[in-house]
Amino acid sequence: MNEIYPVKPLLEALDGKTQSVPPVWLMRQAGRYLPEYRALRRRAGDFLELCFKPKLAAEATLQPVRRFGFDAAILFSDILVIPHALGQRVAFEEGEGPRLDPAGDSAAIARLYAAVDHSALDPVYEAIHLVKSALPETLGLIGFCGAPWTVATYMVAGRGTEGGVPARRLALEDPIAFGELIDRLVAASIEYLVRQFQAGVDAVQIFDSWAGVLGPRELERWCIAPVRKICEKVRAQWPKARIIGFPRGVGTALSRYVEQVPIHAVSLDWTIDRSFARDQVPRNVAIQGNLDPVTLLVGGSALDREVEDILQSFVDRPFIFNLGHGILPETPVEHVERMLRRIRGADRK
Amino acid sequence: MNEIYPVKPLLEALDGKTQSVPPVWLMRQAGRYLPEYRALRRRAGDFLELCFKPKLAAEATLQPVRRFGFDAAILFSDILVIPHALGQRVAFEEGEGPRLDPAGDSAAIARLYAAVDHSALDPVYEAIHLVKSALPETLGLIGFCGAPWTVATYMVAGRGTEGGVPARRLALEDPIAFGELIDRLVAASIEYLVRQFQAGVDAVQIFDSWAGVLGPRELERWCIAPVRKICEKVRAQWPKARIIGFPRGVGTALSRYVEQVPIHAVSLDWTIDRSFARDQVPRNVAIQGNLDPVTLLVGGSALDREVEDILQSFVDRPFIFNLGHGILPETPVEHVERMLRRIRGADRK
Repeated sequence: MNEIYPVKPLLEALDGKTQSVPPVWLMRQAGRYLPEYRALRRRAGDFLELCFKPKLAAEATLQPVRRFGFDAAILFSDILVIPHALGQRVAFEEGEGPRLDPAGDSAAIARLYAAVDHSALDPVYEAIHLVKSALPETLGLIGFCGAPWTVATYMVAGRGTEGGVPARRLALEDPIAFGELIDRLVAASIEYLVRQFQAGVDAVQIFDSWAGVLGPRELERWCIAPVRKICEKVRAQWPKARIIGFPRGVGTALSRYVEQVPIHAVSLDWTIDRSFARDQVPRNVAIQGNLDPVTLLVGGSALDREVEDILQSFVDRPFIFNLGHGILPETPVEHVERMLRRIRGADRK
Repeated sequence: MNEIYPVKPLLEALDGKTQSVPPVWLMRQAGRYLPEYRALRRRAGDFLELCFKPKLAAEATLQPVRRFGFDAAILFSDILVIPHALGQRVAFEEGEGPRLDPAGDSAAIARLYAAVDHSALDPVYEAIHLVKSALPETLGLIGFCGAPWTVATYMVAGRGTEGGVPARRLALEDPIAFGELIDRLVAASIEYLVRQFQAGVDAVQIFDSWAGVLGPRELERWCIAPVRKICEKVRAQWPKARIIGFPRGVGTALSRYVEQVPIHAVSLDWTIDRSFARDQVPRNVAIQGNLDPVTLLVGGSALDREVEDILQSFVDRPFIFNLGHGILPETPVEHVERMLRRIRGADRK
């Protein structure tokens, strides 16, 4: 007796199926480029408040899906909810980005909670429930967390950095303390992702936005090994877990990443050569990406050409269309619509 | 009748000679980590004033060579003297970085001078004369310019950016105007570098600090092709020219860069895998690099280990020891001394 489940194109890709029209979603698809998001944001006040009010977070998650008909919704949240749930003070200042009480030495790291305070994260799981109940059955719901290395760059510096120098410095000066921080983030991420699956997400993405600033040995130790451990443990606890890795700027280490980290898909940034990626990523790992957000911002024939090139490069294998990094706030919504028409064939020659 | 010239280890490496002890210099070796530089800076006032006062610029150039005995001096100057010499207003605000009147559209680009105003650059050539006459004969003198793409990121945005989004946007929205800007920078760089050689530099480095934010097609068009043209024309006009390219973040495109750009050495950033670089760079191109500036900042056994790894990786081929990016201002001078002792053998097992 086979039950018939509605097909979710996102999950088909993650399970290794080649599709003539690939599923598509965009990183940061809920955001300031949408008028309805800006209105929601004005109601919520602080950015973290928006993340921690389940109804508002669910609404932000659903807005872009409703407007554009993407194949997946990604939970509206932030990678810094984990430092918050580990007891670090996190605030978002308007136009300034995140500010944290820096965890820059062993004493500050030791003061973090030993385990995640899930009560702080309950609103996230509640938002997942709300989205799940409202989402059409053919759409995937994606949860996420930051990779330990990337989250650590914010925790150590107390803010966003260009190049993660404070974290790179601590990792060299006191690898025991820094390793302790990474271990806590690994443990927290495992629990957090499993709870997201329990709450109803179909897949998760692990964002390693700052992987590209590490040398090869540091990449192995602080990026690849911790993310591998997260994937192994999450999959052991939740066998249906599908995981997308996004090691931005991984460059020549792409093959090492996909060999060592048991992921279902790898998300590529826009700088990577597509034929290189085809060669390096085995067919049992789906590719996701990799439109330059600036190309989407500019639109027009440059956008058409690039969408076509991406499709030509990847549509004969398991593939998810996405950006190579987060959507830029000034992006016109018409360009997103144009991109979708082209991917879905109405505009294709 | 052979004349005996004093041997310059820097030029030996650039001419393809393998040396048991490689020559060494550091990017931004004159800078805020030196107390004598900070004293000089207080006398000079504005940063551009320091660049444009030949005696002070020469003194800044010589300070690190005097203190550490590096194998090369690099002219103390800035890549933004070229926009200045093309008529764009450039200022350095303390703690803020450079500020320029943005050349963000075709009208602003058309207002730039058609050719470099060499009178604005005479102080640079004069500084080269002064350094040359003071420099021991075994030391190389390195001039430099920014690569057109990297200089353009500042000119278009009017400031430093993370990722060069304004320039990437203009390049897509108005490739004709952006191409005009790049062409002017190519022409200006050729003249500027040839004049530097005429004034007495032994080699030049072309800094492409933002090469890594471009996709493969844009890298080809806005980085590789313009720098190739600069190298070809400079070498045609000054046959003894030696040129070092520094395409920071070039990653998987390293082999394309070294195949297409006629350089004598390629400078590697710290993220690149050293065995990958050995495979990709032919032996007739020297390798320069690639110590992580954070490792030099931290010092100790981490520094020793990394210096050793670099030497093991590259000392059997033409090689110049350097950092993988500019020295960090907080770097203790003792760490530079420790690094030099290890490279030069006193501390090597």
